[in-house]
Amino acid sequence: MSNGRAPDRSRRSERSRQAILEATRALISEVGYRKVSIEAIATRAGVGKQTIYRWWPSKGAVIFDAFLALSDAGGEGGLALPDTGDLEADLKLVMRATVAEFADPAFEKPIRALNAEIVNDPDLAAQYREQLARPVDDAKRARLRSAQRAGQLAADADLDLVLEVLYAPLFQRWLHRTGPLNAEYADSLVDITLKAFRP
Amino acid sequence: MSNGRAPDRSRRSERSRQAILEATRALISEVGYRKVSIEAIATRAGVGKQTIYRWWPSKGAVIFDAFLALSDAGGEGGLALPDTGDLEADLKLVMRATVAEFADPAFEKPIRALNAEIVNDPDLAAQYREQLARPVDDAKRARLRSAQRAGQLAADADLDLVLEVLYAPLFQRWLHRTGPLNAEYADSLVDITLKAFRP
Repeated sequence: MSNGRAPDRSRRSERSRQAILEATRALISEVGYRKVSIEAIATRAGVGKQTIYRWWPSKGAVIFDAFLALSDAGGEGGLALPDTGDLEADLKLVMRATVAEFADPAFEKPIRALNAEIVNDPDLAAQYREQLARPVDDAKRARLRSAQRAGQLAADADLDLVLEVLYAPLFQRWLHRTGPLNAEYADSLVDITLKAFRP
Repeated sequence: MSNGRAPDRSRRSERSRQAILEATRALISEVGYRKVSIEAIATRAGVGKQTIYRWWPSKGAVIFDAFLALSDAGGEGGLALPDTGDLEADLKLVMRATVAEFADPAFEKPIRALNAEIVNDPDLAAQYREQLARPVDDAKRARLRSAQRAGQLAADADLDLVLEVLYAPLFQRWLHRTGPLNAEYADSLVDITLKAFRP
């Protein structure tokens, strides 16, 4: 939200903005998506309702920004996966970080609350796909295309399917709590995916 | 519930039992897991509450039987996957049927309602794993072990991971509504899984 005006004011704005996003995530974890209100977010963040409405047009908008901030998908410079030229090493780095996030209660609680709502709400699912999942998936697909050009991944591989094979097992294991989420598991998903889609 | 007594009575019992399980599934779809009551199930099924309590000790027990009946995991003869000796053909048959189930509103609505609850309820997730998922997963693992013995699947393959790679992409695609659920997709999941875990 930096606008080049007085630095003090800009810093204060950024602090308020972060407080609002943190309050939003905390409230979603505690009371669930449906029960979160702009009023409750304002009270929790120590700001006036008008401060929230100055930056966000609706409750849905602030909630999605809260998740975007958490996932880094909303970063100003855009999102990119590491590309050292070694696909296996790069994917293991990313998957280990992803597994660690899902094993971290502070991260996973609001995502779990959001997922519970998404299951029965096709509109929210679409919003999630477009605003949260797509920027991250685009970055992942860019890395996979680089690997295809380098001959490390089958040129005709369906990249949506590659992403599903890489991430869906982790997602299901996390959602249904069916097994450990650790670095070894992250590595095994990368190994299997590379074997399944090698040239 | 057949007990070898008068056939009329047995048939009537089975009709009541099926009506109760159907009413349970319908109510879960309509009002959600938490709001379903034994009273509402009895009214919907046209039976007395005592009829339900004669067969099931609790609301949780009747709800799980309703899902078990739907999934065939509670079949009397146990559950088995086809084993013609051709792993690819057998898995494609099973996955095409699974994809069709998840694309069928009558099947998927109660499962979706149950999943929404499972996300935030570790106890319900454990019950789901043990009572619903495990019998089906055991049957799938038995088929995969047969394929390992026949040299069609790597002898050291982690069968839990094989099942995750086969089913989790479908589960995630269904849950987040991110793509089509059709026979072609079912086949591609089998192809990829066999490539990833071939000897």
